[in-house]
Amino acid sequence: MRIDVVTIFPEYLDPLRQALLGRAIERGLLSVDVHDLRRWTHDVHKAVDDSPYGGGPGMVMKPQVWGDALDELCAGGTPRLVVPTPAGRPFTQAMAREYAREDWLMFACGRYEGIDQRVLDDAARRMTVDEVSIGDYVLVGGEVAVMTMVEAVGRLLPGVLGNPASHEQDSFSDGLLEGPSYTRPEVWRDLAVPDVLRSGNHGAITRWRRDQALTRTFERRPELLAALPEDALDKHDLAHLARVRDPDFDPAKSV
Amino acid sequence: MRIDVVTIFPEYLDPLRQALLGRAIERGLLSVDVHDLRRWTHDVHKAVDDSPYGGGPGMVMKPQVWGDALDELCAGGTPRLVVPTPAGRPFTQAMAREYAREDWLMFACGRYEGIDQRVLDDAARRMTVDEVSIGDYVLVGGEVAVMTMVEAVGRLLPGVLGNPASHEQDSFSDGLLEGPSYTRPEVWRDLAVPDVLRSGNHGAITRWRRDQALTRTFERRPELLAALPEDALDKHDLAHLARVRDPDFDPAKSV
Repeated sequence: MRIDVVTIFPEYLDPLRQALLGRAIERGLLSVDVHDLRRWTHDVHKAVDDSPYGGGPGMVMKPQVWGDALDELCAGGTPRLVVPTPAGRPFTQAMAREYAREDWLMFACGRYEGIDQRVLDDAARRMTVDEVSIGDYVLVGGEVAVMTMVEAVGRLLPGVLGNPASHEQDSFSDGLLEGPSYTRPEVWRDLAVPDVLRSGNHGAITRWRRDQALTRTFERRPELLAALPEDALDKHDLAHLARVRDPDFDPAKSV
Repeated sequence: MRIDVVTIFPEYLDPLRQALLGRAIERGLLSVDVHDLRRWTHDVHKAVDDSPYGGGPGMVMKPQVWGDALDELCAGGTPRLVVPTPAGRPFTQAMAREYAREDWLMFACGRYEGIDQRVLDDAARRMTVDEVSIGDYVLVGGEVAVMTMVEAVGRLLPGVLGNPASHEQDSFSDGLLEGPSYTRPEVWRDLAVPDVLRSGNHGAITRWRRDQALTRTFERRPELLAALPEDALDKHDLAHLARVRDPDFDPAKSV
């Protein structure tokens, strides 16, 4: 997969060359090219922003600079253009899977009050343009949102993760949050690993993990349970959720 | 505000020293100290992870290393401990505002299949522990989630943003997505700035921006409209939404 990022802070994206994704880049599983937007300015101050029409605080990124950058970078083909903005559609694991099937993604990092809307309207005449939000909060710029999306997409590319089975147990892959994990020692400080995990009884372990995922999803994200397809929960799941919903339920005793 | 981050990839957090937050750190508005978790390992391999009890793919971060790190770093007081995980409660702009009122935040970056749950259970006996998720997708580790949260919180600290009025127009501050922005030139390629923004009629501009925010929220995040308090929409808002809901509504014509 080819990834291009356009930003006024190219060094901000340096961490993508570290750790898991850095090794994936070295192995040729993906390429990440980061471009300084100021390369496409024509004035001595290399200005990328100007006052908004209609007044108000903040500055808006100029259309000419972005238009020229996208024209040059997209001369050889048609990427999917992704623009992070708090006003976008929510980025989800399903969207990460969709992006992982693309050949070429281009990310445009806005700063200030965002990019002149005509840049996106113009680009949308030639390519798919997604305005996406990584969550319901406001950032300083799009850079950290792009890092987030590149990580989420990059780890799904074939060969990037050592053990693809890790994907299957991820939170969201079955619509539930993942339950707690434990490693050695058996007792740390005064806290013991739950007995069932040391039992060697694989059926009981699978059931316990499923129950923990159900409990956690009910407590932290009840809307995810409501959104599950009708056949996602079997009679054991429903019996467990009935116990969790009981006002006398004590999660510590279920361990 | 004091911020500490514990991670096995300290360089990953370097971008926080750039741009707006970098200047805020230089001006003493916040401190960000990043600690290498491996400092608290005792073996020659500096191992931080081990196999999960109960089997399964992936590795779990060891309780001793994390326990020792938190004991030493929290010896002088009680931070609020924030642990990014896809299985956490959602991080929102309201939570960013809440965190911005704290004196001391400590972020614990998990990698692999997460941190042994007993580390969080033990810490919760002495401090507030939040397991939070920045969105419904899976990352390689907690580092980029911490960068996201530090940006969202840092820009809310007094003095960090040049113009505090920028906060008030942010997406989410009134429960709606922000509409499009425009800057010079008046016509770029064949696309013109909407007439109303060049009218100088402040009442009409305010009304237009509100309508754009309503249209965009309806199209991209209808659930946000449904979640607004009853008195959030006046009769003009409701009339505009009725037009938007009309199947013959053409957003291009509303510009």
